Amino acid sequence: MASPSNQDPQTIGTPVAVYADFCLIPIGTGDTSVSKHVADVQRLLKKSGLNYHMHSAGTTVEGSWEDVTRVIGQAHSMLHTQGISRVHTDIRIGSRTDKQQTMQDKVASVEEKLARDEEK
Amino acid sequence: MASPSNQDPQTIGTPVAVYADFCLIPIGTGDTSVSKHVADVQRLLKKSGLNYHMHSAGTTVEGSWEDVTRVIGQAHSMLHTQGISRVHTDIRIGSRTDKQQTMQDKVASVEEKLARDEEK
Amino acid sequence: MASPSNQDPQTIGTPVAVYADFCLIPIGTGDTSVSKHVADVQRLLKKSGLNYHMHSAGTTVEGSWEDVTRVIGQAHSMLHTQGISRVHTDIRIGSRTDKQQTMQDKVASVEEKLARDEEK
Amino acid sequence: MASPSNQDPQTIGTPVAVYADFCLIPIGTGDTSVSKHVADVQRLLKKSGLNYHMHSAGTTVEGSWEDVTRVIGQAHSMLHTQGISRVHTDIRIGSRTDKQQTMQDKVASVEEKLARDEEK
Repeated sequence: MASPSNQDPQTIGTPVAVYADFCLIPIGTGDTSVSKHVADVQRLLKKSGLNYHMHSAGTTVEGSWEDVTRVIGQAHSMLHTQGISRVHTDIRIGSRTDKQQTMQDKVASVEEKLARDEEK
Repeated sequence: MASPSNQDPQTIGTPVAVYADFCLIPIGTGDTSVSKHVADVQRLLKKSGLNYHMHSAGTTVEGSWEDVTRVIGQAHSMLHTQGISRVHTDIRIGSRTDKQQTMQDKVASVEEKLARDEEK
Repeated sequence: MASPSNQDPQTIGTPVAVYADFCLIPIGTGDTSVSKHVADVQRLLKKSGLNYHMHSAGTTVEGSWEDVTRVIGQAHSMLHTQGISRVHTDIRIGSRTDKQQTMQDKVASVEEKLARDEEK
Repeated sequence: MASPSNQDPQTIGTPVAVYADFCLIPIGTGDTSVSKHVADVQRLLKKSGLNYHMHSAGTTVEGSWEDVTRVIGQAHSMLHTQGISRVHTDIRIGSRTDKQQTMQDKVASVEEKLARDEEK
């Protein structure tokens, strides 16, 4: 039997459930403010139908690997269409097969542990 | 006059106000859950006196470059002391000299733009 | 005319030429060494036909947004198939429309500037 | 005995040996080229005396946590002095206590595994 690394890459899928946290930076705009562009990206995410949450250092989005990475790529293309010729994004992306865990579950899991400190 | 890049590095300081968003991962623990370790890092941040905020994909912390990077390094050392022999962290860190902007300011600046969409 | 942010997201494409630099971490393996898994990912990249280069802190890969993000997602799926239930990846990804620039071009552009230092 | 997380943070050190891979981006410069600034950062690293290696998607630097994070912060300050008012850096940083491993060792460890493929 072929080991996974000997598989034809065309037949390997991508994870069906991931979280991604990304921070997108337009380069060479001549303006230190990026909030206008971040707002445009939020509007794009809203239309995508994916679950997402903006925080001060990025935006977390949940969905399939394909959907999540596509919408971030569309954000690049959208900004290019607006005349921004260089865009850089940092993405943290994770997948797990042992359990389903939403953004809220992850924070709750830590907060529950911290709450026990108060009780002591 | 010496250009900045000709300066003696020992005489260059580090920024007095930065934000950093970090995601720390213990490697080789044999356990897919990292919430116990994240909780320990939150306790360390609390004791540091720095302003911080945990979200589902990391923790944002504000302060001087020196204070912010030190506390993340202390988190590595703390986990090593607990027997975790390898720790990897991804940090987004930013500094700006044109204005002071807190975590809340950044989110508010985008949300204000999005709020105008609703009004139309 | 619709502004780009009013476009139907389904009609927005993704960039045709990007570079991505990624660092993949298997979580909960019980082993601090990740070189076996990194080697498997290199084999997958080789089969993908994309241009890639491994360095000590990650692997850089070039191609279309779709191809580059798909192969990284396939790396996650491949490791899950091998029994690793949690995988985290940090990706830096960039696109530009003003010029084509390979990995080699980028390094050469900096090295050329540094070489002039020696001449002085 | 106090558990590590109950320790006074002031008494916790930071790792003595780390590797960091960073990608620094000047924001709002009005120029999509960043090679001039990357060259300045390389000059700063050279003067720091630390071991470093530039690649197409960042620069890897080795040393103590304190030295490595300080030089990256100095790069921010240097660019601010040059009139760039906003700088963003993405850093991957890792420490391990189970063995010493240089940049070269890490790449060699993977390449050795890949070389065995050829032999078969």
